[in-house]
Amino acid sequence: MKAIITALLLAAAGLAHAAPNNASPIYGVTLPDGYRKWQFIAPAHETPPLDELRVVVGNPVAMAAIEKNQLPFPDGTVLVKLAWKHVQSTESPAAYVPGAASTVQVMVKDSKKYASTGGWGFGRFINGKPADEAQHQTCWGCHQALVKNHDFVFTRLAP
Amino acid sequence: MKAIITALLLAAAGLAHAAPNNASPIYGVTLPDGYRKWQFIAPAHETPPLDELRVVVGNPVAMAAIEKNQLPFPDGTVLVKLAWKHVQSTESPAAYVPGAASTVQVMVKDSKKYASTGGWGFGRFINGKPADEAQHQTCWGCHQALVKNHDFVFTRLAP
Repeated sequence: MKAIITALLLAAAGLAHAAPNNASPIYGVTLPDGYRKWQFIAPAHETPPLDELRVVVGNPVAMAAIEKNQLPFPDGTVLVKLAWKHVQSTESPAAYVPGAASTVQVMVKDSKKYASTGGWGFGRFINGKPADEAQHQTCWGCHQALVKNHDFVFTRLAP
Repeated sequence: MKAIITALLLAAAGLAHAAPNNASPIYGVTLPDGYRKWQFIAPAHETPPLDELRVVVGNPVAMAAIEKNQLPFPDGTVLVKLAWKHVQSTESPAAYVPGAASTVQVMVKDSKKYASTGGWGFGRFINGKPADEAQHQTCWGCHQALVKNHDFVFTRLAP
């Protein structure tokens, strides 16, 4: 009996390690610590239906690669895209500013772990929780189709 | 003669110190070193005729104040707004991304030096050079009229 309980506990611990409930389906990507303070790469405006303002930030590995135009990005690169609803300013009506946060999306470079998806693992988070598997099945196809000549990354450094 | 030359040199040095040619008219604000790597506060989208994407960043004094909701901003605060033309992405047509850089605008808090303008000095730069005096005469009136309840600063921290 004791052996069975021990085996069950070990199995449970193993499952928890393999797929923590704050990690993205398919890829197992989590939100990196401290990303809100990372250096920004560029902003973007996504028209409706998404209707968002966005800022992409990079960790130090990403920024070092970008500074020397290094492609493909090295292992350890992490890119995070923050997004908010695109809302008209009440104080300056010609301007649109961030409304409620919508998604936070993460790309992690690990050329071995993610060899079948260009070396990138993807994560999409809403209120800090990973989106479902169906949403994560859409990431790679789009990045692969549209930006294969830029190591599957849309964002370029804003001058 | 020697005394006259010395006096002229001193006067020239004094003028150069008072208004270096990379400083804004009226305020004498210069572009701060390293601002491109500062933490971002928020993005914005300015509709035509300006037609820009923008990111506002803050120096460490600014970010510390923002984290604790400190108003007015303390002396030493520097805010920088980077702006680019709002250009449709060729790779993802629903998105607009940064085109050419347009202006870089700076606000510096010094409650004594800039006492007559809410404690703020302003600088607007195009290709690294300060814009003319007429442009700088517009800064304070607009900030004073529209955002006096937020220490004359439009930008809020994006969540």
